[in-house]
Amino acid sequence: MKSGVPRVSAYVLDQNQYGKAENRIVKITRRGNNGGWHDITDLNVSVALRGEFGEVHYSGDNSNCLPTDTTKNTVYAFAKEHGVASAEAFGILLAKHFVTSQPVIHEAQIRVEEYAWDRIPVAGREQQHSFVRKGQEIRTAQVTYSGDTGALQVISGLKELTVLNSTNSEFHGYIKDRYTTLKEAHDRILATKVTARWAHSAAATGREDFDWNRSYEESKRHLLEAFAETYSYSLQQTLFAMAGRVMDNRPEVNEVRLNLPNKHHFLVDLDPFGLKNDNEVYYAADRMYGLIEGTIHREGVKPVIATSDWITA
Amino acid sequence: MKSGVPRVSAYVLDQNQYGKAENRIVKITRRGNNGGWHDITDLNVSVALRGEFGEVHYSGDNSNCLPTDTTKNTVYAFAKEHGVASAEAFGILLAKHFVTSQPVIHEAQIRVEEYAWDRIPVAGREQQHSFVRKGQEIRTAQVTYSGDTGALQVISGLKELTVLNSTNSEFHGYIKDRYTTLKEAHDRILATKVTARWAHSAAATGREDFDWNRSYEESKRHLLEAFAETYSYSLQQTLFAMAGRVMDNRPEVNEVRLNLPNKHHFLVDLDPFGLKNDNEVYYAADRMYGLIEGTIHREGVKPVIATSDWITA
Amino acid sequence: MKSGVPRVSAYVLDQNQYGKAENRIVKITRRGNNGGWHDITDLNVSVALRGEFGEVHYSGDNSNCLPTDTTKNTVYAFAKEHGVASAEAFGILLAKHFVTSQPVIHEAQIRVEEYAWDRIPVAGREQQHSFVRKGQEIRTAQVTYSGDTGALQVISGLKELTVLNSTNSEFHGYIKDRYTTLKEAHDRILATKVTARWAHSAAATGREDFDWNRSYEESKRHLLEAFAETYSYSLQQTLFAMAGRVMDNRPEVNEVRLNLPNKHHFLVDLDPFGLKNDNEVYYAADRMYGLIEGTIHREGVKPVIATSDWITA
Amino acid sequence: MKSGVPRVSAYVLDQNQYGKAENRIVKITRRGNNGGWHDITDLNVSVALRGEFGEVHYSGDNSNCLPTDTTKNTVYAFAKEHGVASAEAFGILLAKHFVTSQPVIHEAQIRVEEYAWDRIPVAGREQQHSFVRKGQEIRTAQVTYSGDTGALQVISGLKELTVLNSTNSEFHGYIKDRYTTLKEAHDRILATKVTARWAHSAAATGREDFDWNRSYEESKRHLLEAFAETYSYSLQQTLFAMAGRVMDNRPEVNEVRLNLPNKHHFLVDLDPFGLKNDNEVYYAADRMYGLIEGTIHREGVKPVIATSDWITA
Repeated sequence: MKSGVPRVSAYVLDQNQYGKAENRIVKITRRGNNGGWHDITDLNVSVALRGEFGEVHYSGDNSNCLPTDTTKNTVYAFAKEHGVASAEAFGILLAKHFVTSQPVIHEAQIRVEEYAWDRIPVAGREQQHSFVRKGQEIRTAQVTYSGDTGALQVISGLKELTVLNSTNSEFHGYIKDRYTTLKEAHDRILATKVTARWAHSAAATGREDFDWNRSYEESKRHLLEAFAETYSYSLQQTLFAMAGRVMDNRPEVNEVRLNLPNKHHFLVDLDPFGLKNDNEVYYAADRMYGLIEGTIHREGVKPVIATSDWITA
Repeated sequence: MKSGVPRVSAYVLDQNQYGKAENRIVKITRRGNNGGWHDITDLNVSVALRGEFGEVHYSGDNSNCLPTDTTKNTVYAFAKEHGVASAEAFGILLAKHFVTSQPVIHEAQIRVEEYAWDRIPVAGREQQHSFVRKGQEIRTAQVTYSGDTGALQVISGLKELTVLNSTNSEFHGYIKDRYTTLKEAHDRILATKVTARWAHSAAATGREDFDWNRSYEESKRHLLEAFAETYSYSLQQTLFAMAGRVMDNRPEVNEVRLNLPNKHHFLVDLDPFGLKNDNEVYYAADRMYGLIEGTIHREGVKPVIATSDWITA
Repeated sequence: MKSGVPRVSAYVLDQNQYGKAENRIVKITRRGNNGGWHDITDLNVSVALRGEFGEVHYSGDNSNCLPTDTTKNTVYAFAKEHGVASAEAFGILLAKHFVTSQPVIHEAQIRVEEYAWDRIPVAGREQQHSFVRKGQEIRTAQVTYSGDTGALQVISGLKELTVLNSTNSEFHGYIKDRYTTLKEAHDRILATKVTARWAHSAAATGREDFDWNRSYEESKRHLLEAFAETYSYSLQQTLFAMAGRVMDNRPEVNEVRLNLPNKHHFLVDLDPFGLKNDNEVYYAADRMYGLIEGTIHREGVKPVIATSDWITA
Repeated sequence: MKSGVPRVSAYVLDQNQYGKAENRIVKITRRGNNGGWHDITDLNVSVALRGEFGEVHYSGDNSNCLPTDTTKNTVYAFAKEHGVASAEAFGILLAKHFVTSQPVIHEAQIRVEEYAWDRIPVAGREQQHSFVRKGQEIRTAQVTYSGDTGALQVISGLKELTVLNSTNSEFHGYIKDRYTTLKEAHDRILATKVTARWAHSAAATGREDFDWNRSYEESKRHLLEAFAETYSYSLQQTLFAMAGRVMDNRPEVNEVRLNLPNKHHFLVDLDPFGLKNDNEVYYAADRMYGLIEGTIHREGVKPVIATSDWITA
C-alpha cells in the first residue's frame, strides 16, 4: 500500500449509495404443451444500497461493502429462485433481501425498466416462442425498502410514450411582457413524450397478491384516455387531467408525477409559395422545447416521488 | 473578399452530393365527418442532389447551386400540393421535381424515415384525432431518379425491428482453430435487430397506382413470419430464409439486403449458487455482437442496394 | 370550446414548474484588432419557473402563465443585453429577472450546459475566429433564486469527464455471502465517467465580482489530481478523496456530490491461447456497471444538491 | 433437427459478410522506470469476413464458418502477441491473419475506432498511469485484405470533429426558384462536424515501417488548418480546400472523402426587443441540416472509399 496520500477527514459524508446498475436480464418461462409455450420478461434492473459505509469512503476498508458484483449475481439468481411476477414484485423481493441479509445495509432501492414484447403471429396465429419487441413505451418501477422503519415504497411508471392530439388544443390569454412575440393559438397540435410515475398506497403495497401488471396497464390506459379526451388550453391543464384521471379510477394510486416535454409542431408558412396551410403541414422540432412538470396527489398524502430538481445524464 | 488563399485545382472532384437532411414533417389529413377524422403521416425526409457542381467546389461560385434551404421548402410545399400517399410515392415526386426543374441537377436521391402512429382508443373506440406513437420499427424508403438515363429506383425497408426466438436455434459444426473457445450450442436464444432493405422491380416502380403501403406491410409480415418459422442453425441461414420468403411472396421485390446484429443472450451460470439454469435466465449483452449481412436477389437481377462497406455515423 | 369534460378538482397540486428547456445559444464577442479577435461561448440553457400556477392546471386559465416561448426570447435577448460572463453569472441574471419582473413567479431555476472550444492553431498560431470543439467534458451550472426568501443558490459541475488509472487500485476484504463469486483484486484498472456538482457558499454567491470561470477550472483540476493521486481500495474511497480535495483547496465550495459509474475493465483470459495476460489486455464493458454516488460537505453545512433518487430520461 | 421448413434455393446469394463487431479493447503497455510508465491504447475493433459461406446460408452447415466468437478472441490475443502499434497496423495484422489462416475466407475487413487519452497532469507534471479521455474526435481506420488478389487497402479517418468559423463565410449567387426564400448571406457562421476518410497509396501501405500515427496527426492538422484558412463562399468550397490541403501535404494520401453536415447557426431576431443583433447571438439548430459530401482524389487514381449511398443505423 502506497502511503503519503493525505487522509481526508474534515468533511461529512452525507447521502450515499452504491450498487450494480443496469443488469439486463431476460427470463424465459415455459408452460403448457410440454413447456412449449414460452413467456418472456425483459428487464433492466439497477440496485442501490444505503447503510453503514463510512469506512469504505474514509479508508477503503471494505468490510461493510457487499460488492456490486454480488448484487448483480443476486438479481440473476433471484430470477431463477423466485421468478419475476412483475417488475414491482421482483423489486420488493430484492430490496427486502439486501436489507434483511446484511445488517450494515439499512435501505435498498431497486429500479427496473421493462421492455414489452408481442408474440409474432404467423398466418394470424400467435407463435409459441417467437417475439417482436413492442417498442411503444418503457415501463418503470422503483422499490425502496427501509430496514430501520420497515417502510416499503413502490413507485410505478412509464417513459417514452409519445402522444399527439392534432386538434382540440388552444393557448392564449397568457402574460405579455417586453420579450413576448408568441402569437395566440386557437387550434394547434399538442404533442408530448410522457414520463409518468405514480406512488401506491400502503394498502396496495402491503398486499402480497396485489396485481401490479393490471394496475400498470390500467394506469397507462387512463393516462392515454385523459390525454385524448381533454380539450386543452395549456399543457399544464392536460397534465392535471391525466394525473387526476388515474387517481379517479385507481384507488391504489395516491400520487402522480408527470414530466411532459411540449414537442412543438410549428405550422409551416407556405404563403411565399402561394399555398394556404390550413393546419396541414407541420415542422416537428427537436429543441428547444417547453418542459412541464408537476406532482398531483390525494388530499392528506405526503408526496414521495422525487422532483427533478436536476436532470442527470 | 479575402485573397491569397491558394486555389486548389490539381485534384479530381469525384462523387459528390448535397441537400437538406432530416426534414421532420408531420402531415395531417382530414376526412369524413366534416373533416373531423384526422390521419397523420410523420416523416423524416432527406434530400441529396448530384450534378454539375464543380465550380461550387472549386471557387464557391454558386450559380449552379440550389440551396439546401430551398430543397427543404420544397419538401414542405410538396406535402401540401401533392399530399403524401406513401413515403415512396412522395420520394418519387420530389426526386423527379429536382431533376426536371433544374438542368444542372442530374440525379436526386430522397431518403425517408417514417414513424407509425396508432389511434388512441377510449373505451375501446378509436379516437378521431388522438394518436400514440407505435414505436415498433422505423420504415425507410430511398428513391433515386436519374435525369440522364430516366432510371427510377425505389428501395424500401425498415430498421430497429427487434425479434427473438427463445428456442429452435442451434450453432455447431463450425471451424475450430487456435483461438476457438466457443462451446457448441444445441438450444439457444436467437435475437436480432433487423435492418432490411428491398429493391423493387421496374414493373412495380413504373406503375403509378402501385400500393407501396400494402407492399411494405406484407414484406414486413413475411420477414417476421420467416424469422419465427425458421429452425435455425446459423443466423446466416435465418437471414437467407427471411430474404427468400419476401421474394417468394412479393413479385415486386427483386433483391433484399439484411443487416442482422446477433444480439447475444448468454445463459447465466447459476451453479455457484446451487441453482440449475435450465435455459431460463439470460444476460442480454450490448457489445460486442456478431454482425451478419447479406444481399439475396432473384437470378438475372443486378443488385442495386449499397453494401455497408463502411458504416458511417 | 368543448364542454362535458369533467373538471378534476379533488386533488392537490404540489411541486410544479415549467419553462423552455435546452435553448441552444452561441454568443460571439469581438475584441482587439478592430473587433477581429472573436471569443465564443456555447451554451444550452434551460428555464424552470415556480409560482402561482394553480389555475393554469385546473382550468387552463393562462393569466398567470409567462409562455415558455417568452422565456426563450429572454435568454437570447439577455445574451445581447448583458453578455455571458460565465454560465453561473448568466444564470443569476436570468433567475432574478423572472422572479422580480413577474409577481406570480416565486422561484426560478436556470440550468446551463456549456461546451468548450479551443482555437484552431495554424502553423502554431491560434486563429482569431476559428474554433474546434474541445469535447472533453460538459460544464454544468444550476442557479435557483427564490423571491420569497431572497435565497440565491449556485451549483456548478461537470459531466462526461472520463478518467482511468491503469494501476494503484485494489479491491478486497469485502463481505462474502451466498451470491459472491468475485475474486479479490490487488491490481486493477479503475475508470469512471465523472458527474460532479458542487455548491457554493453564500459568501461566494453574494460577490458580484466572483470569478466563476476560475473557480470551475480549479475545481476540475483538483478533481483530476485527486483521482490520479489516490491509491484506491474502493471507488468510494476515491470519491471521498476527490470531493475532499476540492474543499481543501476551494473555500467557496461547501458541498460536493459525485456520481461515479465504475467503468469495468475486465482482464481477458488468454490462457486458452497459451498467452499470459500480465495486466495488459482488457475488455472495456458497457453494461452492467457499478454506480457509486455520494454527497460530502463541510461540517455545519446543510446539503442542497439533489440526490438522484430516481434517474430520469 | 426439425424438418418441414422449406429450403429456399431459387435465389442468388450476393455480397455477404459477417464477424464480431465492436470489440472494445484497452491495451496497457509498460515502459521505463521498471515498467512504471504506462501507455494506453483504447480501441473498438470490428471484423468482417467474406468468402465461401454459401452453405452457411442455404442449410446452416457451418463447416466453413469461423465463429464470430473466435474472431473476437483473435482480436484480444493479437493485442497481446503483436501489440498495437497503430489502428492501421493492427488492422493489417488481423486482416491478413484471417485470410491466410482459413482458405475459405477470401477477404477480411477490419474497422477500428480509436479514442484518445491525455495524461492527467498533477502540479504540471504528467502522471505515469493516470489518464483523462480527450474527447475531441474519434479516429477511424479500415483495412481490407484480399487473398485472391493480394490487394491491401488502408483507409484512415476521423469523425465527430466539430469546427466553427465565426466569420469569413458568405453564401449568395445561388439559383432562385419558386421555392426559394433564403436571404443571401455576406457574413455568417460556418460550422460542421467533420467525418473524413482518406485512402493511402500502395507505396505507403506496402512499407512495413510506415508511421500511421504521424500520418494521422498531420492529416488531421491539415484538415483543421484548411478549414480555418479558407474564406468560404460555400461549404462545398471548404470541403474541396480541406481535401486538397491534405493531398498537398501528404504524398501518401491519394483520395479524401468528406461528409460535412452544415450545422446551422441562425442569427436571432432581436428587433422586437429593441436590440440590434450585430452577428453576436445565434441559435444553434440540431435538425434539419445541410449535408455536403464529396470525394476528391489525385488524377489517375481510382476512388476506393465507399460513398454513403445510404446512411445506415
